[in-house]
Amino acid sequence: MSKRIGRQTVRLAEGAVILSAASTVGPKEAEGPLGKYFDQRAEDALFGEATWELAESKFVEKNMALTLQKANLKAKEVDYILCGDLLNQCTGSTFGVRQFEIPFFGLFGACSTMGEAMSLGAMLIDGGFANHVLAGASSHFCAAEKQFRFPLPLGTQRPPTATWTVTGDGAVVLARKGNGPKIVEITTGKIVDMGVTDANNMGAAMAPAAADLLQTHFADTGRTPQDYDVIATGDLGTVGRELVVELLAKAGYEMDSRYTDCGIEIFDNETQDTHAGGSGCACSAVTFCAYFYPRLLSGEIGRMLFIPTGALMSPTSSQQGQSIPGIAHGLVIEGCKKGAKK
Amino acid sequence: MSKRIGRQTVRLAEGAVILSAASTVGPKEAEGPLGKYFDQRAEDALFGEATWELAESKFVEKNMALTLQKANLKAKEVDYILCGDLLNQCTGSTFGVRQFEIPFFGLFGACSTMGEAMSLGAMLIDGGFANHVLAGASSHFCAAEKQFRFPLPLGTQRPPTATWTVTGDGAVVLARKGNGPKIVEITTGKIVDMGVTDANNMGAAMAPAAADLLQTHFADTGRTPQDYDVIATGDLGTVGRELVVELLAKAGYEMDSRYTDCGIEIFDNETQDTHAGGSGCACSAVTFCAYFYPRLLSGEIGRMLFIPTGALMSPTSSQQGQSIPGIAHGLVIEGCKKGAKK
Repeated sequence: MSKRIGRQTVRLAEGAVILSAASTVGPKEAEGPLGKYFDQRAEDALFGEATWELAESKFVEKNMALTLQKANLKAKEVDYILCGDLLNQCTGSTFGVRQFEIPFFGLFGACSTMGEAMSLGAMLIDGGFANHVLAGASSHFCAAEKQFRFPLPLGTQRPPTATWTVTGDGAVVLARKGNGPKIVEITTGKIVDMGVTDANNMGAAMAPAAADLLQTHFADTGRTPQDYDVIATGDLGTVGRELVVELLAKAGYEMDSRYTDCGIEIFDNETQDTHAGGSGCACSAVTFCAYFYPRLLSGEIGRMLFIPTGALMSPTSSQQGQSIPGIAHGLVIEGCKKGAKK
Repeated sequence: MSKRIGRQTVRLAEGAVILSAASTVGPKEAEGPLGKYFDQRAEDALFGEATWELAESKFVEKNMALTLQKANLKAKEVDYILCGDLLNQCTGSTFGVRQFEIPFFGLFGACSTMGEAMSLGAMLIDGGFANHVLAGASSHFCAAEKQFRFPLPLGTQRPPTATWTVTGDGAVVLARKGNGPKIVEITTGKIVDMGVTDANNMGAAMAPAAADLLQTHFADTGRTPQDYDVIATGDLGTVGRELVVELLAKAGYEMDSRYTDCGIEIFDNETQDTHAGGSGCACSAVTFCAYFYPRLLSGEIGRMLFIPTGALMSPTSSQQGQSIPGIAHGLVIEGCKKGAKK
């Protein structure tokens, strides 16, 4: 009955169908290269709320409601909700989902949270514990800058290795039955800490964890990068992606142009002043929901390896001189057959 | 194949065996009524570290290592580690577990985290995804006061409704096979917010969530409070326990003396100046591991309903005038048969 196929990988018996996916983003994301793919766009970062923190909860609430609607489900038909965010004590999520009255598991995986939510959600489905699971993740640029770095009104200069926290929420409904792309395998990451202490270079801090996850996944499954139509890490940006390519080359794997990073896709670094790219829990969440999910649904992508990445530090740990531990969670998602009826 | 027996409850097919449990606490806990039951005691709250935050991570590391040792397991034999704490971005956990190199799912359920970790862990076991799961939760009085209320050197006076955050870590190894008490049912809580805004009265903020969980559990299973030898909530203290008894009486259930709260058991409020009792993620975690687990193992407790409780606010949300959402997670744990060989 064991579903384990390696130290860190499980193969699901039936898989978990991704019945719907939705994304709600801020104005900067809407102006970026993926702008036309997002479902809902806020006119400004406050989204009609008094604070950035409450705005983040509104992104969560509005987007989760849309995700349910797209799956033709009412909140009471959902067995579990799994989500998380970057705010202290994850209040972006808790204040966003409380009115749904769905049994709730709060997660903290930093920017890897979408991977954690989809992994645990898919196992709850495949294990027979749930028929429907709502899984999501959110972040907010202004709330994150204030909390992790400096309040925005200070106008602090950002170094070239810095990434830009994505404002928004991405969520999916996972189901035991129905049509849609399927989560079929899960490789769960361990914490990897190579001693990076620069909170303005998260790509470098997280790249070793992503590289470790990729190597472990290939070892567990016997596959190579070329067995996937798309491999997408979460929010390494240009600096981190380059490091991953280098680290994998040393391990004997060629990461070619089919390997991208959500933080590279979501912004145009040249025109949007985003430096190394996008980051934050919402980066991989909204990019998956808006950009990859429709291509899995149409069959354009046959098999994808989705790897949200996270940096597990806090402002306090950084102030105390601690290094930044990284983590990455991998999901193998199979697209619908081309031309199949939906 | 569905294991659901109600809106919020699942019954496990095989159950998850609690193979070992361990607790490591600070000096105040060691001086309390449960002092002799704890496995490891720190001489002072810094536990040899330079900061309270690093001390919390040391509690996690030392205690998780002991939990593994008690189960005769090496870290590489554990498939997943699930844990969390109250510190911003859950660094108590991440810095505590990173050297184990076990696939990691970080959780945030505030003080209900032990319930969340044991619930998800048990489902990963029962669903065939893992053979061994390490589940735990930690908190630290000094780090929590500094973060949520005031730095200790200010000497701020605490109101009588305040509770005292437990310093320590509690953890269990869950397994598919072996002898020990068994997790057989799981009732997962939804977020309940009755509008309480006083961060010095967490018992009142969490009691409605605990009462909701109890009523839902009894409705889902068709049982009454009298079907359990022990019902233990997590950290409501004297104020919260009284509210739960009152709310359940209104719903037609008599909560008698078999109902206790870990926050009441862990300190002697008369002599230890702890006001309404103990609280924090570690409160239910160490009380379960030190006080209830041995009695389940000996068969003295035949069936227990364990309900860690949590308050899902942050200092920022409180400063912004928001109310305190509560949550509670329930686990039915069956003790070993009396006189059974171990």
